[in-house]
Amino acid sequence: MRPTCSVFVATSLDGFIARPDGRIDWLEPQNARVPAGEDCGYGAFVAGVDAIVMGRHTFEQALGFEPWPYAPPVVVMSRRGVAVPPALVGRVSVADEDPPALVGRLGAAGLRRLYVDGGQTIRAFLAAGLIDEPTITTVPVLIGQGRPLFGAPMADVGLELVASRAYPFGFVQSTYRVPRAA
Amino acid sequence: MRPTCSVFVATSLDGFIARPDGRIDWLEPQNARVPAGEDCGYGAFVAGVDAIVMGRHTFEQALGFEPWPYAPPVVVMSRRGVAVPPALVGRVSVADEDPPALVGRLGAAGLRRLYVDGGQTIRAFLAAGLIDEPTITTVPVLIGQGRPLFGAPMADVGLELVASRAYPFGFVQSTYRVPRAA
Repeated sequence: MRPTCSVFVATSLDGFIARPDGRIDWLEPQNARVPAGEDCGYGAFVAGVDAIVMGRHTFEQALGFEPWPYAPPVVVMSRRGVAVPPALVGRVSVADEDPPALVGRLGAAGLRRLYVDGGQTIRAFLAAGLIDEPTITTVPVLIGQGRPLFGAPMADVGLELVASRAYPFGFVQSTYRVPRAA
Repeated sequence: MRPTCSVFVATSLDGFIARPDGRIDWLEPQNARVPAGEDCGYGAFVAGVDAIVMGRHTFEQALGFEPWPYAPPVVVMSRRGVAVPPALVGRVSVADEDPPALVGRLGAAGLRRLYVDGGQTIRAFLAAGLIDEPTITTVPVLIGQGRPLFGAPMADVGLELVASRAYPFGFVQSTYRVPRAA
């Protein structure tokens, strides 16, 4: 059994995860409406994963956070290699496989739940049929243009809605499950 | 006070209202999961509008339905004119104004609630700052590519979540309100 691959991501109502240039400043006035201590389930979600798989872009963004924001092991997908700062050796590894090979290797190593993050990485996993449980938090703002979460050519994928929740500050969070072929 | 402009539309989870060629066949297996008699609030919504504003594409699609599907008066936006079948004269009019002028004229005529439909028309109204209450029903399927509901360059628009509801067949319907400038 391969690991379950989950996504936990916020998008604008028009489906963007970032502006065309990558900025996420539009989230700031939205996040300002969220009560202190409310993480919309993120902490519990991350506590349940065995590793986080992300692309180089997301990794390099995360390097800008102080302290390092992730407790689980992080796997950075990159064909051309990524410099891992000494402080993160042992917590961050670099993988040059494609999504199926990576998921296969991590599964063989005993990992059961992966958190897949970053637009390009999520789309590559989707295109490979490897996303099992996307949780999408829709933030009540339209930004017009940006980097879409979705939008890769692929066959139709039907999903089951697992849960949906509206927060009093206007976020709507829905978790879906992609049924695996029998 | 100008009329309130509402949208009531279904999109795939990846934010498309139709495939690249306009087909909506992907809705059929989804609609098959909806119990008989369940219209997800559409009937009540339509009963509350004074007119439906749509573009030529949506109008020509609607002409393919038998009987004519709309009870409220329909206004077709088209600069080059549209042929209205004799049976629909009196129920369908054609307008060549831009969205602000059209909304102004309909408001002066006493209309209070408009239902704006069709991807291009919705985007034109959005870009003009004329959408007040979008209701978006997210259907649990990814289709990969298609005609997006959103995605027009515009300034950020913050919305308020009015209501959100998850249906047992997996649709999530959220109604938003765009605060008007004071």
